[in-house]
Amino acid sequence: MEVDEINKMSTICAISTPEGSGGIAVIRVSGPTAIAMVDRLFCGRKSLTEAKAYTIHYGEIANTINGKQEILDQGLVSVFRAPHSFTGEDVVEIACHGSRYIQQTLLQWLIDGGCQLAKAGEFTQRAFLNGKMDLTEAEAVADLIASQTKAEKDLALSQLRGGISNELAVLRERLLTFTSLIELELDFADHEELEFADRQQLFDLAKEIESTISQLVGSFKTGNAIKQGIPVAIIGAPNVGKSTLLNTLLGEERAIVSDIQGTTRDTIEDTLVLGGLLFRFIDTAGLRETDDTIESLGIERSRQAAQKAAVIIHLQDATQPIDTLSQIDNVVDKHVIHVYNKVDLVPSFVAGANSIGISAKSGDIDSLRQLLITYAEEQCNVRNAVTISNTRHYEALMRAQSAIQRVKEGLEIQLSGEFLSMDLQDCLSALGEITGQITSQEVLNNIFSKFCIGK
Amino acid sequence: MEVDEINKMSTICAISTPEGSGGIAVIRVSGPTAIAMVDRLFCGRKSLTEAKAYTIHYGEIANTINGKQEILDQGLVSVFRAPHSFTGEDVVEIACHGSRYIQQTLLQWLIDGGCQLAKAGEFTQRAFLNGKMDLTEAEAVADLIASQTKAEKDLALSQLRGGISNELAVLRERLLTFTSLIELELDFADHEELEFADRQQLFDLAKEIESTISQLVGSFKTGNAIKQGIPVAIIGAPNVGKSTLLNTLLGEERAIVSDIQGTTRDTIEDTLVLGGLLFRFIDTAGLRETDDTIESLGIERSRQAAQKAAVIIHLQDATQPIDTLSQIDNVVDKHVIHVYNKVDLVPSFVAGANSIGISAKSGDIDSLRQLLITYAEEQCNVRNAVTISNTRHYEALMRAQSAIQRVKEGLEIQLSGEFLSMDLQDCLSALGEITGQITSQEVLNNIFSKFCIGK
Repeated sequence: MEVDEINKMSTICAISTPEGSGGIAVIRVSGPTAIAMVDRLFCGRKSLTEAKAYTIHYGEIANTINGKQEILDQGLVSVFRAPHSFTGEDVVEIACHGSRYIQQTLLQWLIDGGCQLAKAGEFTQRAFLNGKMDLTEAEAVADLIASQTKAEKDLALSQLRGGISNELAVLRERLLTFTSLIELELDFADHEELEFADRQQLFDLAKEIESTISQLVGSFKTGNAIKQGIPVAIIGAPNVGKSTLLNTLLGEERAIVSDIQGTTRDTIEDTLVLGGLLFRFIDTAGLRETDDTIESLGIERSRQAAQKAAVIIHLQDATQPIDTLSQIDNVVDKHVIHVYNKVDLVPSFVAGANSIGISAKSGDIDSLRQLLITYAEEQCNVRNAVTISNTRHYEALMRAQSAIQRVKEGLEIQLSGEFLSMDLQDCLSALGEITGQITSQEVLNNIFSKFCIGK
Repeated sequence: MEVDEINKMSTICAISTPEGSGGIAVIRVSGPTAIAMVDRLFCGRKSLTEAKAYTIHYGEIANTINGKQEILDQGLVSVFRAPHSFTGEDVVEIACHGSRYIQQTLLQWLIDGGCQLAKAGEFTQRAFLNGKMDLTEAEAVADLIASQTKAEKDLALSQLRGGISNELAVLRERLLTFTSLIELELDFADHEELEFADRQQLFDLAKEIESTISQLVGSFKTGNAIKQGIPVAIIGAPNVGKSTLLNTLLGEERAIVSDIQGTTRDTIEDTLVLGGLLFRFIDTAGLRETDDTIESLGIERSRQAAQKAAVIIHLQDATQPIDTLSQIDNVVDKHVIHVYNKVDLVPSFVAGANSIGISAKSGDIDSLRQLLITYAEEQCNVRNAVTISNTRHYEALMRAQSAIQRVKEGLEIQLSGEFLSMDLQDCLSALGEITGQITSQEVLNNIFSKFCIGK
């Protein structure tokens, strides 16, 4: 989008603080006429049009309605001037008392004065369109607001600070140079001997890009686990205390507990933050042979849950003979924690090398908590490497990966520049989509519609 | 409280925006070390300790945890310097991304750094203690935040702008002068002939004060109606459509509607804003003779509701023979609106001079809405006069009224200065309590505990 078009854009407004009433609320106004529009509703010591950027002004918010002045509130107004603002436009933030009535009335007055109500994510979208941030950074804003744990926040903040962009931008730039050279060759198609682009160097670059993309693609599993929660299935025979364990972990009566075998039929899911990481616990039906049709369906679901989990807590009853994991298939790539429950009833209980003892009912589950945290910290170690957590990035990277592999293969079989160029363009386009250098209004709408209004 | 004590006060912090996640959240910090404490967590272009008042600074919010720097967010920090701030102390407001995790972590970091979590209303309480506002103005802050309608907001804002204080301060000042003169007379008790305070002037002043207090006391009915809602009882025989009318007014299925007589037993209350004013509608059991014990109790409650209402909608069924109001006692001081329902079923219906026709079921109730708004606007006309809406003020005014009447009576029977002085002190004390010149920590705690945290 050209600068000219942006300048012609409307001025938008929205409540930027959480919905509801509170001490104060902030209404944000952005666009070419933001300062003038707020100034019309503001009675302070001096006009906002004379205000310096990054200054705060106290005054009354008032409007003339049917020829009569109505004072709405006393508040603080912050002034930001283009391009040094969040959106890159003139921005005014009005901090008023957080009454719903005052918030709504002020918004209405702004709209009556010619502002448009901002669409979801429109402030951030403008920041992107005005070159204040690239698309991954803009997406990180929404992730940051939605973050519930330290790991999620770290992920979003690293992305907001340009983590992914920096990783991709240099590679894309270098790939672009080669692509231009190859396209130049095509212009001199008559001279077959001409090779502006050194094939060996291109092959090395393709290998490098493939390796970087592979790392990023591989990090998605971790990024996704951080964002969606690490899936942990609680599996075991009936009545070993699976639902009691879930309730103790969550600290609430989430699952119905009884001593009747087969109490749990549906798989029950709930999330919990342990050690700054989100876990998604799945309580399942007890695994046993049953004639009960509904219970059978439940047991089938348990098996499916176990398949989807990254961690399996295999719960056994310390007061009962040893159970085996025979009923769960394909746990090869899962992290299985063997846990004996009800150890308070077995004074002589000694945990084996690969198992721990707990008492879910009495709340003695600290050893299990610690094992889960240790596992998760190892898995979600995002200290230095850039981690992908966004499905859109993942999909684009997969396409880039496939394209760069075709480039490599093409170079190996000495494919003509024409075909190489197509694959290179595919790769460039996929990488460009991630940071937003190449994008469509549809993609943008899709991304920003997931934002909250006011950001 | 002395200035010295205030300076020694702790630095407090709280989330000031509504609870929950949103685009941005604001954390407010106030106290002698506010700027230094936030500066420790802020990485901007320059130190906040050098920042000028009323300026905004962009930077990263970070902390050193276990020897490692952790970045929490990017945000804007606003700096206010004592005494030119809301609380009269140094104040810093941090606008961060509105994730719950970020809000909570930042708050935790501030507390770990030595801030205290602000109690409900503590910022406003400090504003009061530092002389930035008197007690009625401080109370108005909470009212302003809670305001749901224009009338409520107008009331609170007028109070915040010193409406009540201005009215009382001058009178109290003049009364104080007389009281001092009379107490001076007591010091010269040996010289009985001495009268520093002119008794006629004092009597005139007492009359003036009594008249002002009476006006304020009288305004409480209006102020209370604006704040609590104007009580409107819907009264009538069974099955005339009282519950249907309530539901249509509210636009939701609030009351259970059936064609069985006696469906409504409990009185159902709900509020609604019409024309910028709050109404409290009370649906009641149909008035009839019944053997059903529960229904009888309901009918008794209807009568009570009618007694407490300011407006009675007497609903009759246009398809039935004319009912009378005989079953409701003492409606002399009520505003009664006679309404015929189900007029859509009576093509020949013509409203009388003192009644209107509606159809609650089909939603045709505009004429009733308009009558209610007209009535309320007449009653709640607070354009120029100061209106009391706070029960605490009302009670103190009642005591002041009683005391000033005793002063007047004392003057008439030429009571000695000693007794006059006691009544004058009572009046001064009651008036001083309203604006907070005379107050106890208990009263303050009681007032500010009703505030939200962060204001």
